[in-house]
Amino acid sequence: MIRPAFFISDSTGITAETLGKSILAQFENLNFEHIIVPYVDNLEKAHAAVQRINRAAEERGVTPIIFDTLVNESIREVIATSQGIIVDVLGPFVRQLETALGEKPSSTVGRLKNADYDANYKNRIDAVNFALDNDDGARINRYDQAQIILIGVSRSGKTPTCLYLALQSGVFVANYPLTEEDLDDVRLPKALASHRERLFGLTIDPRRLMAIRTERRPDSPYSSLTRCEDEVRQAEALFRRFGIPYLDTTHASVEEIATRILFDSGLRGKGR
Amino acid sequence: MIRPAFFISDSTGITAETLGKSILAQFENLNFEHIIVPYVDNLEKAHAAVQRINRAAEERGVTPIIFDTLVNESIREVIATSQGIIVDVLGPFVRQLETALGEKPSSTVGRLKNADYDANYKNRIDAVNFALDNDDGARINRYDQAQIILIGVSRSGKTPTCLYLALQSGVFVANYPLTEEDLDDVRLPKALASHRERLFGLTIDPRRLMAIRTERRPDSPYSSLTRCEDEVRQAEALFRRFGIPYLDTTHASVEEIATRILFDSGLRGKGR
Repeated sequence: MIRPAFFISDSTGITAETLGKSILAQFENLNFEHIIVPYVDNLEKAHAAVQRINRAAEERGVTPIIFDTLVNESIREVIATSQGIIVDVLGPFVRQLETALGEKPSSTVGRLKNADYDANYKNRIDAVNFALDNDDGARINRYDQAQIILIGVSRSGKTPTCLYLALQSGVFVANYPLTEEDLDDVRLPKALASHRERLFGLTIDPRRLMAIRTERRPDSPYSSLTRCEDEVRQAEALFRRFGIPYLDTTHASVEEIATRILFDSGLRGKGR
Repeated sequence: MIRPAFFISDSTGITAETLGKSILAQFENLNFEHIIVPYVDNLEKAHAAVQRINRAAEERGVTPIIFDTLVNESIREVIATSQGIIVDVLGPFVRQLETALGEKPSSTVGRLKNADYDANYKNRIDAVNFALDNDDGARINRYDQAQIILIGVSRSGKTPTCLYLALQSGVFVANYPLTEEDLDDVRLPKALASHRERLFGLTIDPRRLMAIRTERRPDSPYSSLTRCEDEVRQAEALFRRFGIPYLDTTHASVEEIATRILFDSGLRGKGR
């Protein structure tokens, strides 16, 4: 049995989706179909959403679940006429804080303010451009502007991590691929030597690395298990020798890698 | 007065942060300091978090707010001894669904399952690599594999949007910059002509474009207002002439642009 789960919002639906998926993940034995319905910002769209919900209920033969961040009460009332179970993921907390803080919420009617569209926004886009300009050792002359420099063998996860950190957190991250030459000498590449305190290493299981490289360049020395094993072993030796913190990306998502780097490097969560 | 707002999790804290910020955004008149505390997965870390919360309370002279997604009850009880107001952002909904679905949650003790680390993960990383390979018209020969091809003048927001769509949704997006040559002729670049149904245009206010380009290349013809106005006008004429859907990115965040594109192109939220 697959139960439809709707994420409904008058804006992008990102909040409803993020929280809803986390809640559903607590029910591992059940199967859900995720359906995101953004921009439900008038009654007409609300009625259309109700039709979709009811159609899904009939097709699947099971009551859908609806996670919503709708602020407008008239729109919520329309959604409430559907056959789904509604989970209002903002309302109870806003009311709890209203009492605790003694302050009325500012936008009980109207569009949910996008919390991410703020003063940090320009910084995030600048950080994306920085990550692209400083990807893969392309322009080593701007490392002094980097808050973090990721190093690791080719395909250890550096680029997606850089981009995620830039897009989500506005952190300026460069990355540098450790070449065979760097690894053979167990030396720190010249370009990095003066930035040791900002280096962060990524490592990966050699078999996983082989699989990733094989997709890119099948049957090449680059994707052979021997080569992958050698490079990973040498990279880890380099990290240890120079006291560079490092992380195994084999079983981690890019979100987890990014959070861990922010945390371990003191850019988030540590000190005060 | 600045009130500390803590986002505490036994995992990355992304869910607590996303929902917490959306809730706080409803109180526009208040100022909050955001503090993310990930990986609180044992009692020792819980006690350390309590110390940070209490220190923040003293320094700011105001009661902090705590948004948490902690699953382990012992850890939550430690956090509850702090001076902050706790908002449990998962618990009430998990209990509501437990009743509605007649199913026990699978992990009342232990780490919150990361909803994003799933079968789609490899696809998201592949999509990032695709976006990078097909950025800025670099390798036009893989357009047939793109689900969406973003077009627009230089610095209209194509690259960050592509990367966001790839990282968050695993959508394969290429992008192509409209050059002066393309624009003067009001013709569709050859490389794109056979992919019309997958094209999506981005446009931007010329004054905003000028500001962005000036940062990149000050005092150049490229960043002059005349040139920006001409390019934007011609690009919009091209979109209209060929019936290409397009979006103004001037006041939209990358999250909003991405959501709108998924929605308008039918990859999310439309049809069934």
